[in-house]
Amino acid sequence: MFSSSTQIRIHYALTDQMGVVYYGNYAQFFEIARTEAIRQLGLTYKELEAMGILMPVSDVHIHYRKPVRYDELITVTVMLKEMPTGKRITFYGEVVNETGERCTTSDITLYFVDAHTMKPVHMPAALEELLKPFF
Amino acid sequence: MFSSSTQIRIHYALTDQMGVVYYGNYAQFFEIARTEAIRQLGLTYKELEAMGILMPVSDVHIHYRKPVRYDELITVTVMLKEMPTGKRITFYGEVVNETGERCTTSDITLYFVDAHTMKPVHMPAALEELLKPFF
Amino acid sequence: MFSSSTQIRIHYALTDQMGVVYYGNYAQFFEIARTEAIRQLGLTYKELEAMGILMPVSDVHIHYRKPVRYDELITVTVMLKEMPTGKRITFYGEVVNETGERCTTSDITLYFVDAHTMKPVHMPAALEELLKPFF
Amino acid sequence: MFSSSTQIRIHYALTDQMGVVYYGNYAQFFEIARTEAIRQLGLTYKELEAMGILMPVSDVHIHYRKPVRYDELITVTVMLKEMPTGKRITFYGEVVNETGERCTTSDITLYFVDAHTMKPVHMPAALEELLKPFF
Repeated sequence: MFSSSTQIRIHYALTDQMGVVYYGNYAQFFEIARTEAIRQLGLTYKELEAMGILMPVSDVHIHYRKPVRYDELITVTVMLKEMPTGKRITFYGEVVNETGERCTTSDITLYFVDAHTMKPVHMPAALEELLKPFF
Repeated sequence: MFSSSTQIRIHYALTDQMGVVYYGNYAQFFEIARTEAIRQLGLTYKELEAMGILMPVSDVHIHYRKPVRYDELITVTVMLKEMPTGKRITFYGEVVNETGERCTTSDITLYFVDAHTMKPVHMPAALEELLKPFF
Repeated sequence: MFSSSTQIRIHYALTDQMGVVYYGNYAQFFEIARTEAIRQLGLTYKELEAMGILMPVSDVHIHYRKPVRYDELITVTVMLKEMPTGKRITFYGEVVNETGERCTTSDITLYFVDAHTMKPVHMPAALEELLKPFF
Repeated sequence: MFSSSTQIRIHYALTDQMGVVYYGNYAQFFEIARTEAIRQLGLTYKELEAMGILMPVSDVHIHYRKPVRYDELITVTVMLKEMPTGKRITFYGEVVNETGERCTTSDITLYFVDAHTMKPVHMPAALEELLKPFF
């Protein structure tokens, strides 16, 4: 299993008039955590793009259990439960608040695309090599 | 069945450097379409809040089939496939582009909450009465 | 003088926990109104980009007089007070609420840039021709 | 003078199809830096709200000199050039990129408001005491 955690402080722009984080903003949290997960592996998503690979999202599932509020310092964890083998990759995610409560869970699937043809392609070898040791 | 459609023009802020709408922004499209659906019934979400009812989201599923781009005029439709009977309501949604392609589909579940106790409550009678004729 | 108005309904994502529109979101309102102003002239910003012209923003001044709230239908007006003659263009803007109160005023300056060289260039002739009759 | 700096990593959601950070998103950067500046003083904006003080923005001036791009780690500095004495406070701000270029400058004025009456009030004594040593 591969797992990576990132901390995010909730700023005002992320809240809505219900006094909690707007439901649409969690997509950003999981994007940030995915990006930092790849960086932690020793690559950056920016480098993947420079190699001609894009990673559009195909499916998002988010389950909201407990709201997150202004100024909370959340820990966003993303996990790969198994070695991705095809043209897709699914990150499981969770948001945990400062008192250890699991507020949100997600699974988000992206696919690898050739930036020129926009056709799905296999996971780039550079990323595959870095992931192998975790499985 | 109850169904309602709203048109949204994609502005620059909604795009990202991949040249398409950022995946997290679709949550806003479905929120706008839900709000307009309720207004079309003869009530507003603002009035529901004034009655002491909030509608937080519990689950989001979005499937991205085809990207949407800057300046496209999308049609966002939300549907209730059956009369909601409990404390939850699930809206099925889709984004269709100007050439009639179905770009995105979703199901988003919200629950009714008493704004004071923050406990789940039954759908307010005012909304139930307006929905009944559609089922 | 050239002037153009657009109506925008405030959705939940635009509000913050102060119960009003987040101050950073007004940039979107003025962007939408500028885009619609150009469309009303008979051109689109998308077509300008296709001609190889980008219009990055160089300066933003926004004065907030009165907050705008959830579900309000605001009228956003942008104006050109004089014919732009150089490589820059300044739009004066205002947000007026449903009761006619002027809630926000702005002046936002953009410049014309060649998309390939990224150097400032003169306003494209296509836009100049459409603007001339207003001055 | 009081000055405080915060680092922010640019994620995908902040970019637009021009391949740079959307002009409206800088308001968030300066908000984050203001919040961290107050925290560094030994108070939090959240505590100010709990004391019944809100700080709405009255004026924003942002000058964009150079774009900021995806994955850049920017340093956002906010400064108080003089001790605020009345009901308003003006933060000067700048965004500096990893190569030390000053990309954006700003001055943003907020006022202190009583959360109940929504009338402007003097800067709270708690904040004033913490700022005094810097001037």
